[in-house]
Amino acid sequence: MLLVDAILRPASAAVQRRAIAKAITLLESTRADHRVQADELLTALLPHTGRAFRLGISGVPGVGKSTFIEALGLYLIAQGHRVAVLTIDPSSTVSGGSILGDKTRMEKLSVHERAYIRPSPSSGTLGGVAEKTREAMLVCEAAGYDVVIVETVGVGQSETAVAGMTDMFCLLQLPNAGDDLQAIKKGVMEIADLVVINKADLDVAAATRAQAQITSALRLFGHQGNPEHAHAAQDARTGTEVRYWQPRVQQMSALTGSGIDAFWAAVTEFKALQAANGRLAARREQQALAWMWERIDAGLKQAFRQHPRVRALLPVLTRQVRAGTLAASTAARNLLAQAME
Amino acid sequence: MLLVDAILRPASAAVQRRAIAKAITLLESTRADHRVQADELLTALLPHTGRAFRLGISGVPGVGKSTFIEALGLYLIAQGHRVAVLTIDPSSTVSGGSILGDKTRMEKLSVHERAYIRPSPSSGTLGGVAEKTREAMLVCEAAGYDVVIVETVGVGQSETAVAGMTDMFCLLQLPNAGDDLQAIKKGVMEIADLVVINKADLDVAAATRAQAQITSALRLFGHQGNPEHAHAAQDARTGTEVRYWQPRVQQMSALTGSGIDAFWAAVTEFKALQAANGRLAARREQQALAWMWERIDAGLKQAFRQHPRVRALLPVLTRQVRAGTLAASTAARNLLAQAME
Repeated sequence: MLLVDAILRPASAAVQRRAIAKAITLLESTRADHRVQADELLTALLPHTGRAFRLGISGVPGVGKSTFIEALGLYLIAQGHRVAVLTIDPSSTVSGGSILGDKTRMEKLSVHERAYIRPSPSSGTLGGVAEKTREAMLVCEAAGYDVVIVETVGVGQSETAVAGMTDMFCLLQLPNAGDDLQAIKKGVMEIADLVVINKADLDVAAATRAQAQITSALRLFGHQGNPEHAHAAQDARTGTEVRYWQPRVQQMSALTGSGIDAFWAAVTEFKALQAANGRLAARREQQALAWMWERIDAGLKQAFRQHPRVRALLPVLTRQVRAGTLAASTAARNLLAQAME
Repeated sequence: MLLVDAILRPASAAVQRRAIAKAITLLESTRADHRVQADELLTALLPHTGRAFRLGISGVPGVGKSTFIEALGLYLIAQGHRVAVLTIDPSSTVSGGSILGDKTRMEKLSVHERAYIRPSPSSGTLGGVAEKTREAMLVCEAAGYDVVIVETVGVGQSETAVAGMTDMFCLLQLPNAGDDLQAIKKGVMEIADLVVINKADLDVAAATRAQAQITSALRLFGHQGNPEHAHAAQDARTGTEVRYWQPRVQQMSALTGSGIDAFWAAVTEFKALQAANGRLAARREQQALAWMWERIDAGLKQAFRQHPRVRALLPVLTRQVRAGTLAASTAARNLLAQAME
């Protein structure tokens, strides 16, 4: 396959860049023949993936995600890394527009030859968009980008989707976050590996207060009961102590660049710990299996809803279940019987 | 149908009691012909259901659920109510035994003619057990029990299942709960309408501390973003203020009976508010639809897993996805194609 070669063994950086764009466009296509080609492409690239660090970044509009990712990307490039930035923006699936806008948001990073920025796919359900982003991530990895950043805004289930495809999930917050902890969605607190208070220089007192408050909120409700986040444990077999990551809160100012080095130091520490205690590989394995089952469930449900007899019966039975004249379990059994016949 | 008559228009209390037991046994049967009869029975009873208040109660073993439910049940019977107690015990599905034990736990209530106590169905998955409990609830309602209590222990997803079939979800806690908030599962905090600190007389200081701590935890993480729990809102159409329930924490000692009246007063207030603001009906409608779709999803997944070609291929593809040699999305598409052919 020519496209595979142009991604894995490109004659030039420009050739590879065009091949990546073409590959991702192929992955995003809904045409059946394209989908077959896309699956072949993915299968060919897969042995060359998995060596990048996958970093998820979320935060509400206005928190400074673009400035942060641009500063981080340039910092990493200066250290010799190649950086890909992908986006999951649920707003783009609804309106065709996008909260995150296009890649011109990161002016310096987007023109850098060691960076690759791809905006959110703009059609389909969140599941479809997330699937395409996940596949685009594999293309970038095969092309040799060793840090892949997946960013999202805090809308709907998009953080869960991003956390479900990355090695580490970071949440950006504003300095006043501590005054309004309720604004932080519980679900996000539970999956955050690292919380970053951005624009900390704007109000140092507020940022420090927020750091303390979010730290205690993370202790109470973050990752609790999650074995990944027990501080340390005894290895049952060898008796040696195994260390685990504890979610933490850091300050930063992406605009002045202050705190970027401390951020990357934390990421590096996280990565080393997770590699040593086996969680990095385990998380990826779980993610892949969870992803497979999620797509299967979605596919089954879609086929069910499109079944002619189900389509005819569903509105009637739904009305009866709503009205309380038909038991939900009876309705489910009737519909399943129709679909299976 | 004789059974329907014996439930709706019984010649005596004893006849009805036997008919209820027989109906629930029929619902719990896995035989296909029984299932058809059970669906007919449910459909016949359904118009006579829905008038009971459905109260969910959860708490870890040792918190005093049985003592509490017995005290509450006897209190309600003295006020003229008829009380049914059903149980979802996930441990019974695994071991055949049960954390909650049998109905002899509630000695006085279980022999009372205005009470009906049914232990957890003891086989199948949690989904199956929850479905049977949900259907048993409908039988009890049709038989004229006007308070149905569904109890569960805090294991796995059982609280969510109980909250998904009741009008109000109450969590029992011990006085020392505040010292170890982490022991309270986040998910439960999110769905609790009322938290009761039981055995409050054992340590008054601890109970008061726990009450304050759980109250602030509920403010931070309980039901947030849930429109059911906004304190008050303007009705868009009429401009009048609509009041909503705010989750709260109360103390009680089920052993001495202190706090039972305050508990029931809170339940009565909740019920009146939810009826006035429309949430009672809306919650039941949502529950019925959610339940229908959950059963459909489970049925689809089961049929998928039992499909001969899927059974042959699934272990191979799962291994490849785990090992990272096959993309999760490609595996999902392959398996779906096999199942749909």
